[in-house]
Amino acid sequence: MSRPMPLSGFPELLPRERSAEQAVIDGLRRVFELHGFASIETRAVEPLDRLAKGGEIDKEVYVLRRLHADGADADSGLGMHFDLTVPFARYVLEYAGKLEFPFRRYQIQKVWRGERPQEGRFREFTQADIDIVARDTLPFHADVEVATVMAEALSALPVPTLRMQVNNRRLLEGFYRGLGIDDAAAAMRAVDKLDKMPAEAVADLLMSDAGANAEQADACLRLAQIRTPDTSFADRVRALGVSHELLDQGIDELSQVMDALESTPHDGVTVTADLRIARGLDYYTGTVFETRMDGFERLGSVCSGGRYDALADDGKTTYPGVGISLGVTRTLVPLFQRGQLTSTRSVPSAVLVALVDDGSRPTSDAVAQRLRARDIPAEVAPAAQKFGKQIRYAERRGIPYVWFPGTDDGGDQVKDIRSGDQKDADPDTWMPSAEDLRPAIVTTETATEE
Amino acid sequence: MSRPMPLSGFPELLPRERSAEQAVIDGLRRVFELHGFASIETRAVEPLDRLAKGGEIDKEVYVLRRLHADGADADSGLGMHFDLTVPFARYVLEYAGKLEFPFRRYQIQKVWRGERPQEGRFREFTQADIDIVARDTLPFHADVEVATVMAEALSALPVPTLRMQVNNRRLLEGFYRGLGIDDAAAAMRAVDKLDKMPAEAVADLLMSDAGANAEQADACLRLAQIRTPDTSFADRVRALGVSHELLDQGIDELSQVMDALESTPHDGVTVTADLRIARGLDYYTGTVFETRMDGFERLGSVCSGGRYDALADDGKTTYPGVGISLGVTRTLVPLFQRGQLTSTRSVPSAVLVALVDDGSRPTSDAVAQRLRARDIPAEVAPAAQKFGKQIRYAERRGIPYVWFPGTDDGGDQVKDIRSGDQKDADPDTWMPSAEDLRPAIVTTETATEE
Repeated sequence: MSRPMPLSGFPELLPRERSAEQAVIDGLRRVFELHGFASIETRAVEPLDRLAKGGEIDKEVYVLRRLHADGADADSGLGMHFDLTVPFARYVLEYAGKLEFPFRRYQIQKVWRGERPQEGRFREFTQADIDIVARDTLPFHADVEVATVMAEALSALPVPTLRMQVNNRRLLEGFYRGLGIDDAAAAMRAVDKLDKMPAEAVADLLMSDAGANAEQADACLRLAQIRTPDTSFADRVRALGVSHELLDQGIDELSQVMDALESTPHDGVTVTADLRIARGLDYYTGTVFETRMDGFERLGSVCSGGRYDALADDGKTTYPGVGISLGVTRTLVPLFQRGQLTSTRSVPSAVLVALVDDGSRPTSDAVAQRLRARDIPAEVAPAAQKFGKQIRYAERRGIPYVWFPGTDDGGDQVKDIRSGDQKDADPDTWMPSAEDLRPAIVTTETATEE
Repeated sequence: MSRPMPLSGFPELLPRERSAEQAVIDGLRRVFELHGFASIETRAVEPLDRLAKGGEIDKEVYVLRRLHADGADADSGLGMHFDLTVPFARYVLEYAGKLEFPFRRYQIQKVWRGERPQEGRFREFTQADIDIVARDTLPFHADVEVATVMAEALSALPVPTLRMQVNNRRLLEGFYRGLGIDDAAAAMRAVDKLDKMPAEAVADLLMSDAGANAEQADACLRLAQIRTPDTSFADRVRALGVSHELLDQGIDELSQVMDALESTPHDGVTVTADLRIARGLDYYTGTVFETRMDGFERLGSVCSGGRYDALADDGKTTYPGVGISLGVTRTLVPLFQRGQLTSTRSVPSAVLVALVDDGSRPTSDAVAQRLRARDIPAEVAPAAQKFGKQIRYAERRGIPYVWFPGTDDGGDQVKDIRSGDQKDADPDTWMPSAEDLRPAIVTTETATEE
């Protein structure tokens, strides 16, 4: 068969990049599990009516057809999931009787969208979601918890500074209502466009779509300009002179989230109360999050979420939830593409056990097995080439150590091929340094590509 | 929305089962990495012509169509991969210039088949593959290596006894040729049916399809009866009085695999040289593997593979390979369905930190964070209910310890809720027992379902 061509929008990683991605996913999982979030996976497909919202699917979904089935039978009625929230809501309803609520889960899986690919927008990509869902009512501290857990997880990522922006839709709705704007949803949709259009155009939208007058539109824009690294946003909001019960509740909730994030500082993650963040999606009802990555602002938000008062609903019971979703592929692949992120080696092996001659493979195998018995990843050279060639084999893969099994002339020796240091060693006691035991992430502003 | 119905063939796991599956996958990964196999993932889709073999796709593939695109544009020309070998072969060709050969990789991913679901046959399932692939030539010891690494991985699985059967298609081909049967491929296809039809019918097939006479057919069946736990198969084959160069090579290769597997015993895995195993697939050229699970024989083989002399070929270069693929879902889901496999708990948390009253959440959060700082998964109770109710919260999830933060009346205490033992504890020094730190797999012949 001929040489295959890449498929646009379906990124694939070389082993070194995959090693870095695995380390990132392991790190996310570690934080989520330390906080007691349980792993689930959902199937990749959902019935098309589940993927619909209000009868319509606005995402470009991939629909499945069975190749060998005929006519109507061929169409499976199934589409690939385009996020992890829709399938999670379905999972909660389907297994409600077997789950313990409040249910705290994380889910790290691929999702698919048939959209036109562009930088940071893929057709297949990995998301990492955490959510807390309850039956009937979910206390507000769940919002605080998902925010602080995700901030802790983001803080461990080997990526440029992440800027988390937090807001609260109750605050916005209360402010708009307090101003006298009835269609708060339309006002939020207008304010959400501040990223894409000038303030005057948003003011026009507020007047045309949300029924605001010029003064009200101006107040909405002044609210949207408030941005503080702490709870001082509250005084600035109150200084605008609007009052409403929902506004008070929103200010209180956003203050709690900011307080909690401030009291658990996270390296590499900044947090701002940003009153411009509205999230276009109507199903968010309180806290909302977005996150930008320094130098990659045009990717848009790489980590978003919020509170849903009705994550799922089966007609009898309502399941409120709060969650955040991190775009793993969206965050990492642009860094891989620029050579800013890689791994120290392309294989897990810390040690290459050399072959002295063709007949001595059992000896080398035994050395490798003794190293593995102590958790040291090891492989045996594929052929009894000259030692220089065997060392080159290790070098090309980034394997730091080459082991020379003992012969009649002397005992076992191990060489650090970076320094050239070679010394006697016993396969039952020798240990590599802790940082050499596993492949490690390498970040650089100007990584040299191999 | 109404209560969703399960989709046949798309198994989903509850948190406790998922915890067991994760532990299994972690165990596989650990063994593969200790042996220096690098992780890769391939995209879920391939162009339909890649999924074809000789111009035809014999598997029931799911084809993707974009929902909102029209007519010819809607058909993506892409199908979901139905195994991990076809995508791996394509990956090797596509990235050959950036990979180091011999390339040793593992791949644990979902695959999809549009076939009719039945026990152990799913439409979405997880496979775990290891392969070694080289450019131009691949030494035979790679066959030995994948066999021993997979046997080591299988040995760590929490499943009934696995019976690995090994054979060699060169041995079969040499035997048939030595007998005077020219169409060795037809003879192998006939012998491969011994599982499904009586020996006489296979003899008829050997005569009708492979051009054997009655005596030759009889010799083929006598070869197929040979089954030994060691290399003694070799003498029994030679006793049949057939000779051919390929037969000698096959006997030597199979003996090497059996020798290596015998010298590294694996609990819970038996290995047999079974000369009936042919694998129907023409692309295997040497070593072949199948594996049955005790009590689940009707699932067929749960772990299969072999040597391909041309795993991939771009017209200029040939890439020989050898690999084995374990059906993770096929092995685990029947055990979950029978309640024979589960986990000690449904959440990662080893400790539930109780809430003394509604105002003391910061105190409980601080205790939990101090435990997490020492790698102890901990969560805080969702509400300041009576302690009995908080203990029930832990019990239902299988969390072994409940922590009571200190008050004016006394210091911190921790209770093992299984034994009822409660004692003073310091969140900066207390450790649960090693077996309580993480959820653990529970196997039982007659597990009680919750």
